[in-house]
Amino acid sequence: MQPPLPLDVVSAPIADAETGAAMHRLMARLWPICRSLSGQGVRDTLDILAGEMPGLAGHRVASGEKCLDWVVPDEWNIRDAYIIAPDGSRICDFKRNNLHVVSYSLPVDVELDLDELQAHLHSLPELPQAIPYVTSYYRRRWGFCLSHEQRLALKPGRYRAVIDATLAPGHLDFADLVLPGESDEEILLSTYICHPSMANNELSGPVVAAHLAKWLAAMPRRRYTYRFVFVPETIGAIIYLSRHLAHLKEKVVAGFMINCVGDERAYGFMPSRAETTLADRAGLHALRHHAGTFDRYSFLMRGSDERQYCSPGVDLPVASLFRSKYDTYPEYHTSLDDMNLVTPAGLCGGLQSFQRAIQAIEANRRYQAQVLGEPNLGSRGLYPTMSSKDTFKIVFGLVNVFAYSDGKRDLLEIADLLDMPIWELAAAARDLETHGLIA
Amino acid sequence: MQPPLPLDVVSAPIADAETGAAMHRLMARLWPICRSLSGQGVRDTLDILAGEMPGLAGHRVASGEKCLDWVVPDEWNIRDAYIIAPDGSRICDFKRNNLHVVSYSLPVDVELDLDELQAHLHSLPELPQAIPYVTSYYRRRWGFCLSHEQRLALKPGRYRAVIDATLAPGHLDFADLVLPGESDEEILLSTYICHPSMANNELSGPVVAAHLAKWLAAMPRRRYTYRFVFVPETIGAIIYLSRHLAHLKEKVVAGFMINCVGDERAYGFMPSRAETTLADRAGLHALRHHAGTFDRYSFLMRGSDERQYCSPGVDLPVASLFRSKYDTYPEYHTSLDDMNLVTPAGLCGGLQSFQRAIQAIEANRRYQAQVLGEPNLGSRGLYPTMSSKDTFKIVFGLVNVFAYSDGKRDLLEIADLLDMPIWELAAAARDLETHGLIA
Amino acid sequence: MQPPLPLDVVSAPIADAETGAAMHRLMARLWPICRSLSGQGVRDTLDILAGEMPGLAGHRVASGEKCLDWVVPDEWNIRDAYIIAPDGSRICDFKRNNLHVVSYSLPVDVELDLDELQAHLHSLPELPQAIPYVTSYYRRRWGFCLSHEQRLALKPGRYRAVIDATLAPGHLDFADLVLPGESDEEILLSTYICHPSMANNELSGPVVAAHLAKWLAAMPRRRYTYRFVFVPETIGAIIYLSRHLAHLKEKVVAGFMINCVGDERAYGFMPSRAETTLADRAGLHALRHHAGTFDRYSFLMRGSDERQYCSPGVDLPVASLFRSKYDTYPEYHTSLDDMNLVTPAGLCGGLQSFQRAIQAIEANRRYQAQVLGEPNLGSRGLYPTMSSKDTFKIVFGLVNVFAYSDGKRDLLEIADLLDMPIWELAAAARDLETHGLIA
Repeated sequence: MQPPLPLDVVSAPIADAETGAAMHRLMARLWPICRSLSGQGVRDTLDILAGEMPGLAGHRVASGEKCLDWVVPDEWNIRDAYIIAPDGSRICDFKRNNLHVVSYSLPVDVELDLDELQAHLHSLPELPQAIPYVTSYYRRRWGFCLSHEQRLALKPGRYRAVIDATLAPGHLDFADLVLPGESDEEILLSTYICHPSMANNELSGPVVAAHLAKWLAAMPRRRYTYRFVFVPETIGAIIYLSRHLAHLKEKVVAGFMINCVGDERAYGFMPSRAETTLADRAGLHALRHHAGTFDRYSFLMRGSDERQYCSPGVDLPVASLFRSKYDTYPEYHTSLDDMNLVTPAGLCGGLQSFQRAIQAIEANRRYQAQVLGEPNLGSRGLYPTMSSKDTFKIVFGLVNVFAYSDGKRDLLEIADLLDMPIWELAAAARDLETHGLIA
Repeated sequence: MQPPLPLDVVSAPIADAETGAAMHRLMARLWPICRSLSGQGVRDTLDILAGEMPGLAGHRVASGEKCLDWVVPDEWNIRDAYIIAPDGSRICDFKRNNLHVVSYSLPVDVELDLDELQAHLHSLPELPQAIPYVTSYYRRRWGFCLSHEQRLALKPGRYRAVIDATLAPGHLDFADLVLPGESDEEILLSTYICHPSMANNELSGPVVAAHLAKWLAAMPRRRYTYRFVFVPETIGAIIYLSRHLAHLKEKVVAGFMINCVGDERAYGFMPSRAETTLADRAGLHALRHHAGTFDRYSFLMRGSDERQYCSPGVDLPVASLFRSKYDTYPEYHTSLDDMNLVTPAGLCGGLQSFQRAIQAIEANRRYQAQVLGEPNLGSRGLYPTMSSKDTFKIVFGLVNVFAYSDGKRDLLEIADLLDMPIWELAAAARDLETHGLIA
Repeated sequence: MQPPLPLDVVSAPIADAETGAAMHRLMARLWPICRSLSGQGVRDTLDILAGEMPGLAGHRVASGEKCLDWVVPDEWNIRDAYIIAPDGSRICDFKRNNLHVVSYSLPVDVELDLDELQAHLHSLPELPQAIPYVTSYYRRRWGFCLSHEQRLALKPGRYRAVIDATLAPGHLDFADLVLPGESDEEILLSTYICHPSMANNELSGPVVAAHLAKWLAAMPRRRYTYRFVFVPETIGAIIYLSRHLAHLKEKVVAGFMINCVGDERAYGFMPSRAETTLADRAGLHALRHHAGTFDRYSFLMRGSDERQYCSPGVDLPVASLFRSKYDTYPEYHTSLDDMNLVTPAGLCGGLQSFQRAIQAIEANRRYQAQVLGEPNLGSRGLYPTMSSKDTFKIVFGLVNVFAYSDGKRDLLEIADLLDMPIWELAAAARDLETHGLIA
């Protein structure tokens, strides 16, 4: 006989407006930092996050180390970057917006004509006021990004391009936090910390992850162990898997990518590659009852670290819950993805969906009826004693949790069948369990 | 090699208008009796039914006996009940309509003011002319039911409430009938006998069950054994299961609840909890070809003894075929559910759907083709010898029963695939079997 | 480790307009011949086809031989047939249109009145200008077919009916061609050669089959062995199965019926009885990407030799790809199914759909990823080095073939998932395999 589940997480209140505001304030602190795959910006980011999450453990790996099919790149650090125009004015000033420099640009200090300079410039004709976000991690080059309007206004003449950066062997930083639960089975929550100043497609991820961790850390009892992972996208997940794959494959029962969870325009769901894991079921259940309508994406639309977690042979059950998903909103990967796009209310809704998904996982269990035929709920004070036209609807949840506790369906399946949130149904299951009617 | 199936039931004519009229007459005889979970009304009802079904065996169980999770309640007998109004008139007269008294009311003879009386009255504001049907089996109280119009007309003053009833240890009665077939595998047919004067949601069930039994009893050969069960709802099914569970689990291959099968407004289907049993398949097949359109209900909409038969660990394959299902029509559980609502034609259609479902089960078998390639039907006189534009459609049934007799699909599956009633296809299967083409 | 697949067939160009014209020319040569189940017309047809397909092997079986459930019928040969009208004119002249005589008619030379003659005439009131196609293989009689207009114009009087034919023990002819591949697993392609002068429902089949065989014969390497079967319908397939069943059941991994593949009005698909075989999947995939819209038929609409190939116990995976399917177009089985109805472009499209289906089968394989996590495509020159907004879409095929190569899904399943033609995806799979990323 299994002991009753701890229901602390299931019955805990979920985020409110104040939590949304706190997340937005944390985002403001992280905003100015120029993050990339590696370098001081990543370390500064992790330091701030560690202040929110006692126990967050930093790790590093040396450039050149082979991880799975990849090699850890050199460390990139940037101090300044700008272009001096023929009229002496300073444009593409990194200090004003860190998107102006192509991430992982080589250091440079050259004079060149506008025609030559154009080969190093990036802009978006279709979004003429946006500075695009461009990277060149694995091919050595340098470049600047600017709005298309700005680019069209450039006059012929001699320009000086300066990038004061170093790209050299060093380290790549990442961090994780493990919150132990009553079971050593784990829920994996992963986000990334490698984009410069962008809000929905970067900072919403780590700030929601940090507050989800705070919420879980405050629980007297947790059924599962929670593992939060903060890594630069792609290479960071590769590194993390190279160090923890056997453990993760053995322990992780569900996982979620936390990214693009900060605006108010939409909710979205993308399944794991396997599509039917506990994470997929819990994530869908959470959004169905929390979000009302939401967009559903195929795994073919993937673009973040679920690409690694769900790759063949790794096969972790990692689904994604979104507000506006990357690559679906016009501001994506530009300077327009800013602190106005992401709001306290948007972040709050994002956090709540993960809280609901986690409640679904913590509350889920397979029960077996312990009496034959329907139980006499009335004799246990669980049923109205007066039968009338509407009686049989009253204890709908109670009666049906019992009726479907056949040792095959789990509570999440029953909740979906009843179209009721499992976090509401958990109390009925507890009542039945307490009275010895299911186990 | 299995012997050929007996096709007596499959090829028997189904109910006609005269049978419908006979059922309505039987209903009229049962109408005045005040049934409840127990008491003389149940015994009187079973006596009348025994007159229709020789071999119907009565059984009784003593109050206080523990059955599964329940205890058999005391026996309730009522002789009279009424209220004397301040003006001396007699209202809520049980002798005029037995719905006026709350079922299982305690005996009482008190004077009280209208205000006090109100706490014991039940009416339906939304159906102001209907007397509601109310029970209080498991909590001891007393009460009267009346139309809301009547209630609003009550004048302040002193009332006398009289219920001449006994609620005391005694017995609970039920009955069953077993019609043996060539196989000891059983078809279970269950209905209830515990409601006072209501027609669709009570009497339609036992009268259709009785005539289904008469129809089957008249067959020279039956493939299956048929078990008819007449019990008070819920506690009766619990009692029946407590006595026969092991046998039923071993022998029952399909079962149906027979209730709410008497009006002309609709047909309906509700699956067993497992949803895909032989009973579910045969019931759906019968309604698809017999009823044309019909309503489909989820097992979540259940409300009768399928709650017991399909409970976890019991797991009997019991589906429901309805005319207007309980809790879906306005007159349900009120005095408006009367002998006008239920008609001979309505009862006839109800009976026919069970006859069709039973024919489907009797005709169903898995066959295996005995020749490779298509058989030469022409050489056996089974195929037109002149080929022309339409030839290949002519023997559609014959050819396809053969083509799908792969030892995996059964005849019911093939009939569904061909969208043809199995009771028509059974002859084709018999022809092929007779010629040694399938076995 | 399996060796890489030969991709000669997969990357070969499919039929062009010139091939369509060549097929139409071949059809014109076959057009005048009066084919039936047996006789000189079948042999003349096979002789012409052998000229197109070196290696086509003729076979014969004697009348009276028992094959599965059938007996090989007598051989029918016809030299002339006509009716002399009362006015001396010659009507229903076999030499003008071989549909005028009922196939397998007994020899006759009688004088009779119009009334008596009518019992031997066949016409179609609903298509008054068409001569219907009628056969009487298994019941001995004689008859003439004519347009309904012509029939209505017949005047009372004395007619002379002459059929100069022989129906006597002899042989039934058929042929096959086997093109060996690197595997001895086989693709079966079957068509029929038993109808007189009709175009879509006869000649389109053998001419497309012949050109499909020519296309495959020209390949330097074939993955699979190809078996082409040219038989009279029904009895020919029965005979073929009686001689090769064990071999076919062991070796055939996919098969197609080739018939009704010559007009331009439609494409169509009919599955095998099992519905989900490799032939069904490849055929559907081919039509989805080649035909755009196409009609889908149930196996219940079958009418040709898939009736034998898919019969229970034979169970070969044989699907059908059509242009306008038999029994769905008004000219079917009449003199209107002629060389105008079937066009070079229609035949070309028909051939192309089989070529695509075969490419799908040749390209299909189950791969397993050989690295954990996503591979570094960039380091292998397979990925753009500059990341920007659209990067992750660029190598959609490459990335997803890897991501779904989990050893369970095959390439055809992945192609369907990506909604991309497998013949385009095969190159991505080859690239990944060459770089050791999948195997």
